Amino acid sequence: MTLPTSEFSLIDRYFADHAPNRHDVALGIGDDCALLIPPVGQQLAVTLDTLVADVHFFAAADPEGIGHKALAVNLSDLAAMGATPAWATLALTLPKVDEVWLAAFCRGLFALADQHGVQLVGGDTTHGPVTVITLQAHGFVPPDLALRRDGAKPGDGVYVTGTLGDAGLALAAALGKATIAVGQHSYVQARLERPEPRLAEGVALRAIASAAIDISDGLAQDLGHILERSQVGAQVEVERLPLSPAFNASLDRETALVTALSSGDDYELCFTVPPERVARLETVAAAWECRCTRIGVIEAEPGLRLFRADGYAFRLERQGYDHFG
Amino acid sequence: MTLPTSEFSLIDRYFADHAPNRHDVALGIGDDCALLIPPVGQQLAVTLDTLVADVHFFAAADPEGIGHKALAVNLSDLAAMGATPAWATLALTLPKVDEVWLAAFCRGLFALADQHGVQLVGGDTTHGPVTVITLQAHGFVPPDLALRRDGAKPGDGVYVTGTLGDAGLALAAALGKATIAVGQHSYVQARLERPEPRLAEGVALRAIASAAIDISDGLAQDLGHILERSQVGAQVEVERLPLSPAFNASLDRETALVTALSSGDDYELCFTVPPERVARLETVAAAWECRCTRIGVIEAEPGLRLFRADGYAFRLERQGYDHFG
Repeated sequence: MTLPTSEFSLIDRYFADHAPNRHDVALGIGDDCALLIPPVGQQLAVTLDTLVADVHFFAAADPEGIGHKALAVNLSDLAAMGATPAWATLALTLPKVDEVWLAAFCRGLFALADQHGVQLVGGDTTHGPVTVITLQAHGFVPPDLALRRDGAKPGDGVYVTGTLGDAGLALAAALGKATIAVGQHSYVQARLERPEPRLAEGVALRAIASAAIDISDGLAQDLGHILERSQVGAQVEVERLPLSPAFNASLDRETALVTALSSGDDYELCFTVPPERVARLETVAAAWECRCTRIGVIEAEPGLRLFRADGYAFRLERQGYDHFG
Repeated sequence: MTLPTSEFSLIDRYFADHAPNRHDVALGIGDDCALLIPPVGQQLAVTLDTLVADVHFFAAADPEGIGHKALAVNLSDLAAMGATPAWATLALTLPKVDEVWLAAFCRGLFALADQHGVQLVGGDTTHGPVTVITLQAHGFVPPDLALRRDGAKPGDGVYVTGTLGDAGLALAAALGKATIAVGQHSYVQARLERPEPRLAEGVALRAIASAAIDISDGLAQDLGHILERSQVGAQVEVERLPLSPAFNASLDRETALVTALSSGDDYELCFTVPPERVARLETVAAAWECRCTRIGVIEAEPGLRLFRADGYAFRLERQGYDHFG
């Protein structure tokens, strides 16, 4: 058996010629550049995220999950913009050529890519002391329909998709800081390792939401970005936060609320909807596979105010995950 | 003095709001995605390259040069495609927040970006044990005018821009394996640290060259990619290789030829031109700031054959830099 010994054979063997073969790709992997044909009349949405071993994922984690997540976190950014995904590129720095790891990484990456019609059009594989994955995704969105962070207005409702905190619980359990309830491990673990980008929901929100973001660093911090960019504030009723049965069964109520507000990696959408569009939201959200929950309201006064159902303030010490904190 | 402690303040302070502000950028850094407006009737050329500290550059090297080079190597890929550059994104993994390093890195990056009208539209700054830089560049090229690797035909001339081997000499000198001639150090060092992407030359070659590539891994290896993709061979007369006075003054003749053929990082263009377009090439190349040298000819028989002026074969043991070699 001959191991591939150059970056070229690596790229050729693992990353080239995977489905789908999109009509808008004139030239894929294998030249100095990919040549792509953007659709007329659409804007190009571009995003990238880097995952570093033992910073953003455990180096020993299932490589299939790592491949899935590297793409998923970027598709989630497209979803938060209301864009439909099209193309991706991959920069992969590896300490060694491990064919088993690479094959599994590719399985996870390409399964999700196929599911959403995304073609890998470019890549660069390099040698380095630690695994670093930078994936960039390109998508399309009609002009003036993109879901930006800066459109929230006082009176708009604040909503989230799915449930919050599951990924944070999985991470805490992996670090020995929490215990997942009996029988719930695989669900909770999948929420950390296999986040499902809310792409259909993002597209459905195009003419409905006034602002949107995906929750990568924790609800409090990411909603904070909407508030800051929109120059508004919000109040959120913490008892309304959507929590999964597995999550509720694993944590006491106070820990659950703090985790749901401050832990990252959920990749749900947080968005705001003007009152006159709430009925339309309810119509489209009825068709979603995930939950859609109203958790609060935008206000003119800057800042995020958290309340309990009884009206008392809820105090949150730590707002989200800070990569250099 | 307050150090920035989050990835957000890093991005805000160092990477946002730099010139130029292009008309085709609807939304730059600061949201989930950048929103870009591709020109109608052009293809989008996309490329990316990763630079890892102490693999692709010395960790202790001048950070201004690293910033320059991170963009330059990608603009060189656009040049090799005949594309005009437009947008870039940056994924930066850093072991620590070093403001002096970051400021200098940005100076180098943005000086080159400004020079070529490139706007940084997205980024992700992460913490990791080693500095890893992935830069992605986007450019435009009219359909069917892109310079691909697969269009070389028997009888086409083989050409290179500029001079070869200078960057390899600089690297060899830094490793204590070569000595740069007195008075030539700054020129040779600049060729390694500040490569100038041949963008104007690439655009000029659009309707002239039948194939093109940029020389990042050594002439023999990179020309080999053209030959492989075009399913042809070539003969190259090694005495014709364009070498700088500084290079010739520093190395004996045999070492010079091997270095010019096999060392990477030159970022010159290697391209092929059909006989009927040679006159047009000579006309446009007369206006170039860099040299344009015919070094050989494409042949039907596969493989790269190197000859001396006396007709004897030139034997090259090592073909280019292999990242996993």
